[in-house]
Amino acid sequence: VVLPGRTQQNISFDSLFQTSTISALAAGVYDGETTFKELKNYGNFGLGTVNALDGEMIGLDGKFYQVKSDGIAYSIPDSTKTSFAVVTFFKSEKRIHLEGTMNYQQMQQSLDRQLPTKNSPYAIRIQGTFPYLKVRSVPKQTPPYRPLVDAVKDQSIFELKNVKGVLVGFRTPNYMQGINVNGYHLHFLTENRKIGGHLLDGKFQNDQVEIDTKSDVQIALPKTTQFEQADLGDGKAAEVNKIER
Amino acid sequence: VVLPGRTQQNISFDSLFQTSTISALAAGVYDGETTFKELKNYGNFGLGTVNALDGEMIGLDGKFYQVKSDGIAYSIPDSTKTSFAVVTFFKSEKRIHLEGTMNYQQMQQSLDRQLPTKNSPYAIRIQGTFPYLKVRSVPKQTPPYRPLVDAVKDQSIFELKNVKGVLVGFRTPNYMQGINVNGYHLHFLTENRKIGGHLLDGKFQNDQVEIDTKSDVQIALPKTTQFEQADLGDGKAAEVNKIER
Ligand SMILES: [Zn+2]
Ligand SMILES: [Zn+2]
Repeated sequence: VVLPGRTQQNISFDSLFQTSTISALAAGVYDGETTFKELKNYGNFGLGTVNALDGEMIGLDGKFYQVKSDGIAYSIPDSTKTSFAVVTFFKSEKRIHLEGTMNYQQMQQSLDRQLPTKNSPYAIRIQGTFPYLKVRSVPKQTPPYRPLVDAVKDQSIFELKNVKGVLVGFRTPNYMQGINVNGYHLHFLTENRKIGGHLLDGKFQNDQVEIDTKSDVQIALPKTTQFEQADLGDGKAAEVNKIER
Repeated sequence: VVLPGRTQQNISFDSLFQTSTISALAAGVYDGETTFKELKNYGNFGLGTVNALDGEMIGLDGKFYQVKSDGIAYSIPDSTKTSFAVVTFFKSEKRIHLEGTMNYQQMQQSLDRQLPTKNSPYAIRIQGTFPYLKVRSVPKQTPPYRPLVDAVKDQSIFELKNVKGVLVGFRTPNYMQGINVNGYHLHFLTENRKIGGHLLDGKFQNDQVEIDTKSDVQIALPKTTQFEQADLGDGKAAEVNKIER
């Protein structure tokens, strides 16, 4: 699919770009047409998945990785297509220091208190050593695709101790909840880029959180029968919040 | 505000562009920074309002009009700014013929049955003679701005009989409900471009409805304190649906 006329140089750093919506993914729309080659026009940083929901995708410093259900991170070829991806050109604007030790829930609350506003989306990057991270990856699906809430039942969970690496992701405001994961959504990648996954929980100690406020959101909807015929329900991604937590 | 690098020629016809969100407007964020000069880069067709919620805005064939609370349509200067606008370059893709006579509710249901999908946004244009149209316009607000649900209590209502003109607007999917008016949102302008307003109800007879499917949605969020400090609640635009109906 040719994306609307965006070439590298006219992308604004304030722009968050996503292909498809979280409500479509939740409904089992696991095949998109956007290649990672095209996606790179829109960002060097982000997360999501690839076609057939084959694991968790992480974008970092312009490279894109796919953590498969074995927990191993593989480099994603340019020709690979994505069913759901959220990307941006990351430019750290503000550094928030999280004092003391906290779990993921507490970290989110502490960050929420220190963000300039909760009405704008943020790209978030946390580099450091983490005493404990609980991450997951989902197994590749085969058609006819079952909804995300079922696919996630077969997730593999990995508990990482004293691990060095980077958390990559976003915080999106409530009013975007049918479109993107409501609130915080972070993926992890080890420093050697070998292991990672979707963050479920963790223990955080005196972390430096880099944030990048976004003021322009672009959604490229799939032009496929799979998307057009999906039952997106009332669009409120209530059940998605269960899946992504 | 400089909008992300969009120049006229690289706009795709599939793109729906909006400034701010319906949930921000509902919360009383009635001042934006985007001028109509900039807005024209993103579309020649659309609806919304202007700063201070001064009436209902209609965009048609590249010209933008403001129907003030007196029901009269005034041409909008390029320098005027908008607090909420939804625009696109309209290109009729499909013509749906609505058989017989129906009110607005029935027209929406009949259209819904004939749309290719309800998962993509549509731009909608209906040119014709309408036996009866009930339209409204909202009065200009002064700070401190009260929420839309209160401002709309002072709306002026106009009942037009056997009137010739154009209905201009959109149908947006449920999953966009915190961002744009859920479902159908149409504004009216008479053929002589003198009178118009936000459509509340009407009597429709054998109308030809032109639709234009959009597959790319872009939202330019305001970079203002008014927006950043607004209480957008849980973002579900429930009360908005009451206001816009
Ligand atoms: Zn994830
Ligand atoms: Zn309106």
